[in-house]
Formats: sequence, structure tokens, C-alpha cells
Amino acid sequence: MLLNCDLGESYGSWTMGLDAEVMPHIDQANIACGFHGGDPLTMHKTLQLAAEHGVSVGAHPAYPDLVGFGRRSMALSAEEIIASVQYQVAAIDGMAASSGVTLAYVKPHGALYNDMMANAETRRAIMQAVASYHRPLKLMLQATPDADLHRSEAAEFDLELLLEAFADRCYDDDGKLLSRRKPGAVHTREKMLAQVSQLQREGTLTTVSGHALPLAADTLCVHGDNIEGVQAIREIRQLVAGN
Amino acid sequence: MLLNCDLGESYGSWTMGLDAEVMPHIDQANIACGFHGGDPLTMHKTLQLAAEHGVSVGAHPAYPDLVGFGRRSMALSAEEIIASVQYQVAAIDGMAASSGVTLAYVKPHGALYNDMMANAETRRAIMQAVASYHRPLKLMLQATPDADLHRSEAAEFDLELLLEAFADRCYDDDGKLLSRRKPGAVHTREKMLAQVSQLQREGTLTTVSGHALPLAADTLCVHGDNIEGVQAIREIRQLVAGN
Amino acid sequence: MLLNCDLGESYGSWTMGLDAEVMPHIDQANIACGFHGGDPLTMHKTLQLAAEHGVSVGAHPAYPDLVGFGRRSMALSAEEIIASVQYQVAAIDGMAASSGVTLAYVKPHGALYNDMMANAETRRAIMQAVASYHRPLKLMLQATPDADLHRSEAAEFDLELLLEAFADRCYDDDGKLLSRRKPGAVHTREKMLAQVSQLQREGTLTTVSGHALPLAADTLCVHGDNIEGVQAIREIRQLVAGN
Amino acid sequence: MLLNCDLGESYGSWTMGLDAEVMPHIDQANIACGFHGGDPLTMHKTLQLAAEHGVSVGAHPAYPDLVGFGRRSMALSAEEIIASVQYQVAAIDGMAASSGVTLAYVKPHGALYNDMMANAETRRAIMQAVASYHRPLKLMLQATPDADLHRSEAAEFDLELLLEAFADRCYDDDGKLLSRRKPGAVHTREKMLAQVSQLQREGTLTTVSGHALPLAADTLCVHGDNIEGVQAIREIRQLVAGN
Repeated sequence: MLLNCDLGESYGSWTMGLDAEVMPHIDQANIACGFHGGDPLTMHKTLQLAAEHGVSVGAHPAYPDLVGFGRRSMALSAEEIIASVQYQVAAIDGMAASSGVTLAYVKPHGALYNDMMANAETRRAIMQAVASYHRPLKLMLQATPDADLHRSEAAEFDLELLLEAFADRCYDDDGKLLSRRKPGAVHTREKMLAQVSQLQREGTLTTVSGHALPLAADTLCVHGDNIEGVQAIREIRQLVAGN
Repeated sequence: MLLNCDLGESYGSWTMGLDAEVMPHIDQANIACGFHGGDPLTMHKTLQLAAEHGVSVGAHPAYPDLVGFGRRSMALSAEEIIASVQYQVAAIDGMAASSGVTLAYVKPHGALYNDMMANAETRRAIMQAVASYHRPLKLMLQATPDADLHRSEAAEFDLELLLEAFADRCYDDDGKLLSRRKPGAVHTREKMLAQVSQLQREGTLTTVSGHALPLAADTLCVHGDNIEGVQAIREIRQLVAGN
Repeated sequence: MLLNCDLGESYGSWTMGLDAEVMPHIDQANIACGFHGGDPLTMHKTLQLAAEHGVSVGAHPAYPDLVGFGRRSMALSAEEIIASVQYQVAAIDGMAASSGVTLAYVKPHGALYNDMMANAETRRAIMQAVASYHRPLKLMLQATPDADLHRSEAAEFDLELLLEAFADRCYDDDGKLLSRRKPGAVHTREKMLAQVSQLQREGTLTTVSGHALPLAADTLCVHGDNIEGVQAIREIRQLVAGN
Repeated sequence: MLLNCDLGESYGSWTMGLDAEVMPHIDQANIACGFHGGDPLTMHKTLQLAAEHGVSVGAHPAYPDLVGFGRRSMALSAEEIIASVQYQVAAIDGMAASSGVTLAYVKPHGALYNDMMANAETRRAIMQAVASYHRPLKLMLQATPDADLHRSEAAEFDLELLLEAFADRCYDDDGKLLSRRKPGAVHTREKMLAQVSQLQREGTLTTVSGHALPLAADTLCVHGDNIEGVQAIREIRQLVAGN
């Protein structure tokens, strides 16, 4: 089980995330490409940091919404999504190669990610964007009970998926993340570690109502926004390595 | 002698330039990369058009100044220039490859171009940006009496140059473009054609004071902003082909 | 019956709309405020032009989406809508006053307008933005059979409405604009003039199915994007003045 | 002697500055207007905070350079400067009034401030922008030995100036700030407090070479970027109040 984390989300004079603290402990860095965060110089420095630590690099494209940090859904047409995703993927791909790093995958950010999971049309546009890129890249999306559907959609595009689970989030019985507005949506440290352990050993997690939900995940999404996040990453890392 | 033209400078709902009319008559398209014009969808369409007409494609990076169309000098640090140029080059490179086109060169736009010609520090930053890109690209700059200096600078970076002359602009005795504020700065149709013809046959042009200035140019910069520009491109094309 | 038109939608080097041709023939100019078009210098020039022709001026605020020209719905929170609208209204208000013009009203643009008409929450946020502005401004929205509901909502905010009808668009029986994808959505010149005439004299229009729909409109929305639009404005103007 | 501080420089999800900690201890808040920082919602919240603490509010306009935080000089024309400054001033003015606060002055930010001090043409453009605003606002600039020249320039525009000194910066014998690249450019706590005290009591400061330089300042610029800055503001406040 790999660990992936959103990084490179600073912008100009504004910093965000403890990138230098997080990078040594993860396997995959989802790097912002300028549309929700991540100016060119930040991208360059983040790529250098990833190279230094041998971390695999993914594009983290978003809706063009800097002030909203890509967290607000936008009604883009399919061709706008395709071109916008390709632009961002290309930008980080060429910069990564120039830092001696090979871009490996694409993980949409924020509202684009949510819309991809909720909406087949958006998902197909993103799949087409990645599939029509001039060299093969994987697409990361959320591991859900719909994974087979998503894999068959991806197969149409001859596209390989990476499925991610969330370490610190409680799931409902449908395999969706419990809304952050509900109590228990974000796990305590103990529950988080238990969820990771169960995912890794049994391929299941325990939903909010206590059911065991089968969930095959290639990678775990972790967060490095603050000291607590970094500490959690270290503990998850240790747990995953020990298993 | 090749013809190059700035294209793909529309932005979202705003159109600029007669791209469809110009593309059939040029050899090299300098395509905007999003910082002064050229949103992702415009870039995609422009690349498709270039592919259709077998036109060679160059990146046309600029200062990040959409409202100023990249025409206003900005005091970027060398590392900001390098990262910004690489970002734009990478974006168009990956999109071009995905349209079946191979990006061939980089021609800075507007104030970045002017600063490159006027300022060795800016020029070195741009050379480093292109030279440190992960695959070889040529750099287009203005053919001037300083061409040997520019070539030796480029040699330090193991970088190949493309030198361009301007078909419709009057030169002063130092080989600089006569300021647009001066009378005669922009040639009439006849003088433009005469200048092209002289450049091609004799490798010289006649300066504002009547001297013959030697100028070795690989390519001619032409403009497709309006009907008159397109007509001029056709005539230059015919002249160049006929010689 | 007044004529209103969207103006000042150029941006930097990109021009849009025949503002100078349109301004002499309209009563109300909806001026872009920088979020979907209209940089500060364009705003200044448009305000000067309005002042010169004695045209009443309204703010034309939009979602922050330059590349999408404000035509793509964005999921802003109510407080984001309120602050964004107030920012744009304030910017044009202070610039207008400095050009000797008094800002009179607010008409949301594009997707923000559509979301306002479709969604009570968005409409209330916009109403609150205008109502909490430090001096009274009217809010322009579409005249529909829901006008009484809209007026009662506005009354809660102590806000006065301006209701607009569309000269050149066919309406369905619910009083909504027929989708542009349907045949007959945009009227011919004759039908447009007939619709205006009927609106002015009888306060009704004929829907796509031939019913007479009562519609009380304070102002007519006209378009000055091209020569045909300007010609239509002149004819509508003549018709309205003659009645 | 008043204390002024740059505030409201967060942008969307990125925070900058300890605004809530600083506001209770200053007299004048220079609030970012969206061009280098400060989105509409941040502006609204900062204005509310200023209102709560009875702090006078100034516009803090900048070059349109978000990624460079307005710290990079840009070659704007005079009319571009005038329109850009007026736009930003108007935006914060109308929002301030809607929060029950009266905008009192304009203090340019970053590179625009530096260019204003170094370049008479830029300074005149800014003076014209403020002077042509529809209601009187003061302009804040740096107190230097050229203050009389600046006042006579301002008198041409019928404009009142506010002159500011820097608490924590060492001055050279010409009354300019010692470059940050030189040793001793930024004062220790003791020297800072001594400089403030000397400025207030004697109207002079001691330059890098030990000379006493007369400097009449209306206000002191202080910085609230971090805990140390906030602590320094408290100490300066105490000192100024005690004198």
C-alpha cells in the first residue's frame, strides 16, 4: 500500500503545506499545476524535492479557480476539461522530465475530483484527456464499490487506474466519504490507524454503521497541511511498512 | 528563408488574429502558451491547425501579464524567468505531441523578447530555461549585428539559435528596429517586398539612413492581425518562393 | 420602455462589442467590472463614453472566470457571492463617480444571471449584496411570470427591481427563453420588432406555441456584438420612440 | 505619531499576516485590494476587523501581479496606472463604506510604492489617480529629505500627503532605506525602539554613518507578518503612547 499526498500547493509569496517535512515519508506526490495553486517556481522546487527523495510524481490538475483553490465546481464543457487537464499535465510533465523525474499519473484536484467521482460525463472527459496524452499515464481516482464500473470505463480508453482510499475519513455504507458536516467524519488517530491496518490486511474497512466494506486500494491519501498531519503520515508509514 | 508568425493569441471568448487564413502561408507558428494569450482550448485548436498544414511549431512564452498582453516589462528574477519559460514551453510541448506535432523552438513574446534582446541577464536566463529543458529546442531571437555574440552565448548553453528579421520594419544603422514612434518605422508594401528580396538575395538590408547592413536571417517575422497582414504574407511568400 | 446593453467587455488588447456605435442608441449601459471582461482602463473609457452620451450606468458583475467569460456556473458560497458582487459594484461605482456618472443599478452577467433566475439561494445572495451596499442601487433581473415572487423577495431587502425583457428571443409558455438549441429561439428582424411593439403597446408577447403571455418589462435587453446587432438596436429604438 | 501596517494580504485559501493580532495595536490599516493579495471576502473580513477596532483604513493598491505579490516592477503606462489605482481604490472604498468605515488614504504597495518614490512620472500618475478620485483621499508616501518636493508636486494636484517612516529599517545619509542586502539594514529591537523614540521626540533619526537626519513623519510603518513583528508593534505602541 502506497501513500500519496497533495504537495506544491503554495503560490508565489503564500505558502501552504509542510512539503519538506512530508516528502521523505510518502511514495507519490500529487503536484499542483498552477490552476488552483503551484506557480512555476513552486512546481520546480517541489519537483526537485520529489527527485531528491525518490518520490513518484503525479499531475494534480484543477479547475481554473485560484481564489477558490479549485474547490468550487465549475460548469466546463467536455472539450474545456480535456484541454485544461492536458495543459496542466503537459506543464508538469515537461518540468518533471527537466528535473530528471518521470511523471507517472494524474490525480484531479478538489471540485474536479469530486465531479469526476459523481458525474460520468466529467469522468469520461478526464479519462479522454489522460488517454489522449502523447504517452501513457495512469489516472488516480477514489476506490469505491463502483471500482469495476470505473475500470471498464477506463478500459474503453485503454487507461490504467490507480485506486485510492482515505486513511482518516469515515465511510458510509455506500462506500462514500461521510460528509465532513457529520459527526465522526474525520477519524481519531486510533481509528485512522485501525482503518489503515484493516484495509491493508483484509481489504475492507468498517463503515459508519459498523459494516465491513470490501475496498481494494492501491494507495492511501494522506494530508500534510500541518504538524498533526505530518505526525499521522509517519505513523501510517510505520504501520504500513510493518505489516 | 522561412516565414514565422505569432498565432493562437485568442483568449477564451476574445479572438485575435486571422489564424486560419495565415496558417496555410507560413512555415513556423509561434503559439501563445497562456501567459499573455492562448487558453488551453485555443492552444489545442491552434496546434490542430498547424498539424493540418504541416507548419512547424514554436513556444511563444511571455511574462505573466494577461491584461497587458505580455507587452509590459516585468522585473522577474532569473529563476522566475527560467521556471516561467519552462512551464509554458512544457505546456505547449506536451499538447503539441498529443496533437502529433513536435515542438521545435522557443520564441519569447513581447516585452520578454525585447528584454532578452536588450539585457544579457534576461537573455542568459531564457537560454538556460531552453537549454535545461529535457529535450533540445532551438531559441529564436532577432538577427542583429550582435549575432556572433549571441551565438557564442548560446554555445555556452549548447543551444542552437534561429535568427529572425522583420519584413515590414525599418532598421536603424545599428541594426535595431526604428522606433514605431518615428516616421517610416513601418514599411509600405513596396519597401517591405524590397527589403525581403534584398535580405534573401544579398543578405543585407537598407537602413533608415541608406546604408547596406549585412544581416543573416533564418526566418522572417510576419503579422496576421488583419486582412492587410494576410495579404502581405501571401506576397512575401510568393516572392520568397520565386527567388 | 428603455434599452439596455452589455458594454465594456473588451479586455486589455482584446476588443469585443461595438461600444462606440451602440452607446448613442441605448439608455442603460451594463458595464463589465473586471471579472469576466473589462480591465480598469476599458472601464474608464466606457464610463467616459456613457457620460458623453448621457447613458445611465449599471454594474455588470460576474463570476471570477475570465477565460470562460463568466458564462460557466461556479459553486460559490453565499458569502463569496456577496463579497464578489460588492467588490465589482464598488469598483465601477467609484470609477463612475470619478467620471461624473452616477451608478444606478446592478445587472449580473452570464452564468451568475442565469443562476440568479434559476436558484433562490443565489438570488438572495445577490439581493443581499446589492441591499447591503452603502447607497441604494436597483437590481435588474429578467421579467418572468414569477415577477411578483421576485418583487416580494426584493421587498424583504428593501430593494427595487428593474425587469428586463429580451427583444430578439422567443419565449416558451412558462415565460422562459426558448433554449438556443431549439429552432426559432432567436427571432428574425420582423418577429423581433413585432415582439417589441407588442410588449410596449399591450404588455404581452406571443410564446412559441402562440399564446399571449403578459410580461411587464421596464427595459429591453439588446445586443451590440456586431453590425447586425447595432442595426437592430437602431430599429428598436425608432420603434420604441415612435410608439 | 500613528502606526500603519499592511493587512488583508491573504488570498483565498492562503493566509498571510497575523491580522487579528495586529489590528488592536495600530491606527491605520493599509488593506490589499485584490491585485497583489486580498480577494473580496478577505477584504470584507479585514474591513469588519478594522471597524471593530476603530482603525483608520487606507487602500493598498498594487501592480496586477498576484504571483509576484506586487513586488516586481511593471512597465505600465501612466493611464494604465491611473485606471488600475482608481479601480482598486474604488473597490475598497465602496466595500469600506458598506462596512461602516470611511476610506481615508491611499498607500501604494511593493514595487508600485518603490517606483513612486524613485520615479517622478510614476508618482505623478499615482497623484493624478488619487486626485481625480471623486472624493478627497490622502496619499501616503515615504518621508525623505525630498518631502518638500513631494509636497509641492502634491499641491499641483490639490492633494494632501501622509509621510511615513520605517521603525525597523536603517537609513543611509541620503535618507533612503539601507538596502536589505547590507549588514545592519534591519534594526535590532533596541535600535528600532531608539529610532522610534528619536523620531518622535526630536524629529530626526541616526543614519548608518552616525549622522542625525531630520525626518518629519506622520506615521510609522510596522509589520505584522509574524509573532516577532506583533511583539515589536506592541512595544512601539507603548513607547509612542508613553512619550
